[in-house]
Formats: sequence, C-alpha cells, structure tokens
Amino acid sequence: MRIEARLKERGITLPEPIKPYPGVPVRFAWVRFAWVRVRGNRAYVSPHMELHDDGNVAVPYGKVGAEVSPERARTAAQRAALAMLASLKKELGDLDRVTAWLMVTALINAAPDFDGNTEVLNGFSEMILDLYGEEAGLHARMASGVAATPFRQAVIVAAEVEIDA
Amino acid sequence: MRIEARLKERGITLPEPIKPYPGVPVRFAWVRFAWVRVRGNRAYVSPHMELHDDGNVAVPYGKVGAEVSPERARTAAQRAALAMLASLKKELGDLDRVTAWLMVTALINAAPDFDGNTEVLNGFSEMILDLYGEEAGLHARMASGVAATPFRQAVIVAAEVEIDA
Amino acid sequence: MRIEARLKERGITLPEPIKPYPGVPVRFAWVRFAWVRVRGNRAYVSPHMELHDDGNVAVPYGKVGAEVSPERARTAAQRAALAMLASLKKELGDLDRVTAWLMVTALINAAPDFDGNTEVLNGFSEMILDLYGEEAGLHARMASGVAATPFRQAVIVAAEVEIDA
Repeated sequence: MRIEARLKERGITLPEPIKPYPGVPVRFAWVRFAWVRVRGNRAYVSPHMELHDDGNVAVPYGKVGAEVSPERARTAAQRAALAMLASLKKELGDLDRVTAWLMVTALINAAPDFDGNTEVLNGFSEMILDLYGEEAGLHARMASGVAATPFRQAVIVAAEVEIDA
Repeated sequence: MRIEARLKERGITLPEPIKPYPGVPVRFAWVRFAWVRVRGNRAYVSPHMELHDDGNVAVPYGKVGAEVSPERARTAAQRAALAMLASLKKELGDLDRVTAWLMVTALINAAPDFDGNTEVLNGFSEMILDLYGEEAGLHARMASGVAATPFRQAVIVAAEVEIDA
Repeated sequence: MRIEARLKERGITLPEPIKPYPGVPVRFAWVRFAWVRVRGNRAYVSPHMELHDDGNVAVPYGKVGAEVSPERARTAAQRAALAMLASLKKELGDLDRVTAWLMVTALINAAPDFDGNTEVLNGFSEMILDLYGEEAGLHARMASGVAATPFRQAVIVAAEVEIDA
C-alpha cells in the first residue's frame, strides 16, 4: 500500500469511483464499456475526468481557452488523475499493482488556436510522477485538442498501464 | 466458429473486406499501411468505417450533429464494427481468435458543440458485446470529436485486441 | 546497424534528439514526460515533430489546408519520422532493436473540412516502410484532424513499436 501511503502523506483523498453521468439525459445513461479493462499485465483505462468526492462528475464544461481557463483545465487534469486512481483501485485492489505508466492520452476540448495543451496535461503527469516516482510513473503522452468531447467536458484523460498480473 | 455462428443467428452478413477508397482521387489511392497489424498476441486495427456489402466505403460524410444525424452516425459506428470484423476474419482466419477486446478509439467528425459522442460509439460497442459477450467483448474506449477525418467521413473506429497467437 | 546503413545509403542524417521547446515561454519549459517509454518488448513514443539538425523544433505552425499546405505537412510528417528515429536511437542504442512498428497516430492541426489526412501521414509511413521494409515496418495507423495541437504545430506523430527487449 505504498501509493495509498503517499496519498495520505499528501493529504489527498481519492473520490469514490465514478458514477457515470448522473443528471445526464437517459439516452446517455446506458453505456456499456469498461472504465478499466484488465488483461494479462496491461490495464487499458477509458478517459476519466474530474469528480466530486462522491464520484459524481465535476469536470468543468466548455472550451479551454474560452469558457474554461487553462489554469482551471490544469486542475481538472490533475483531478482526473485521482479519478483514474479511484477506478484502478476498485479494479486492482491495490494501487501498487500498477508497475509502470506507459501512455497517457488527453482529449482537451480546445478553443480554436488554443496552444496550451501541454501545460494542461502537466496537471495529470505531475500528480502521477509525484505518487509513483520516476521509474514507475514516467510515461509517454499525447494531448489532443479536439473539437468535441462527450458532454462538452473540458478535459478527459485515458491511459495504458502495466500491472502486476 | 462461434462468432460466425452468432452472426448467422442474428441474420448478419459481414461485408467484403474493405476496398480502400475507390472513386477517391488517385493521389489518395496509394496508401501503405495495415488495416490489421498482428504481432504476438495483439492485433492493432486501423480505423474502419461503414462499408457496402462489396467492401466499398459507404460511410456518411460530413459533420455529425449538422450534416449527419447522431442516429445515422450511430448506425455507421455499428456497421464499422462489421467492417472491422471482416478485416479481422481476413487476417486471422477465424473470428474466435480474438480473445479479448481491449481499447476502442472512435474519431467522430463532430460539429462544434456536438455532445453525443458516447451515444454514437454505443453503436459499435453494443455490436461487439452482443457477438463476443461480456468476458471477451468488454473494452475500454475513447470517443474523440475531431475537426477533420480522412475524406470527411462521419465516424471511423480503431481498436486494439488480444488474439490467440 | 542495418537501419543506420540504410539511412546512410539514402543520404539521410538524423537530427540531434529533440531539444524540447526552446524559445517557448517558460511556463511550457518544464515538461515531465518520456519521449520514449520502454517497458518489456514495447516502446511507447510521444508525438514527435519536424526538427532542425540540431534538435530544435522546426515544424511548421498553423492549420493544414489553410496556413500550411498539404505538401508541406507531408514533408513535416516525413521529418517527424526522422525525429522519432533520433529519439529511439538515443533510448535503444541501435535502431535495429525496433522489431516491428505496430500503431502510428498522427495529430494534424486541420483546417475545417481539410480531407487530406491520409496523404499527410503517408509522408511518415513511407519513410518507415522504406527503412524497415514491409515485415518490420508495416503498421496500423490513425490520422486525427484535431482542433488544436501543442503550440499550434501543423502535424505531430506518436507510435507504439515492438522492441527486442
């Protein structure tokens, strides 16, 4: 429980695992996919977003660089990391079972010509590096400034990680 | 031939494997990439789209939420699943060799502020879950509302799957 | 050193490994991620872009199909392949250790309705196929026309490759 201890040292409480899309029109409610897909020594993680402590979606909505400031988006990316950890903990039991972060993919709902994707994603990367350290936490990553995200969320983050199988 | 049997039970015929880009200006005709890249126990699948029965591209063109309705895009995503299965069958011989769907990535040519990516991608996910069942068919997934797709296609879907090597 | 020999035969010199973001405002300077993340028999490669010989970023900026011509973007994708090879060489020691290209993902900063993503990415794919040959070089690939790239770069390319571990 090394990662749990580090969270505690930093005074960070993970949110409850995501409650998908409460308050969202019912046509969206029935989503059948895995937030975390585990197979062998890999976990593939669907895009996560900022959550309230109770697992309800709390991500800011709108275009980063217009309706949402880059600073707010950075915070959302940081909190998306905590949401992802909550899902990984639920799925794997112990966060120490993540032995290496491999590739992180961010979708940023970018205003035209917004050029700060890198800085937004740093919110996620720094959290993971702080908790996991360089050897396990370092990752390749890609930030994509997209035209639309599900429900107009400002920033969502997916990942592929190596796990102790 | 378990998956073939399920297709037959449901009255679904797969299209012919994709004939890339007929009718498309010749500068695009020479594309050198793999529709399915197999290596060890993984197959990496390039984006697929709706096809006619003869393997010609049949995807609707234009922005989802503007020129293309969400419902039509959902159908296109469902049929993209069949096109992908046709490619996997060609490459693997038997669709049962796909032992687990891992990550599915959709690119949706989204109108500004289109927020229904999740529902569009459900067309794909439900087909795979119906045919493969929860254990093999469940997958992580990401829907990206992009500014442009090749040839302005409304929706295209890529995947990574585990195979019996 | 088979790949190095082929580069030499073709008169191609790789650039120096990327010097990330010189001349870019300091708030962007501190990026903590891996250009190449190696684990087991996989390397995950963050998006690369055209570089000057000295490793400084040389990618054209702006929307492909508007400020940047498709032909120029195609050249940028080709040179992004060389930048990626420079990073892989730095990380792996010998480019022959890349035993198979698996999935290539391009982010193209596309003007609305730009439909030439496929042709732009051919610049990358043809370079890899020429150097590695069909068996190792063939890859699945995805070209995403995005609304925004980091620093408004015209085209950046990520990859997952198999390596001799």
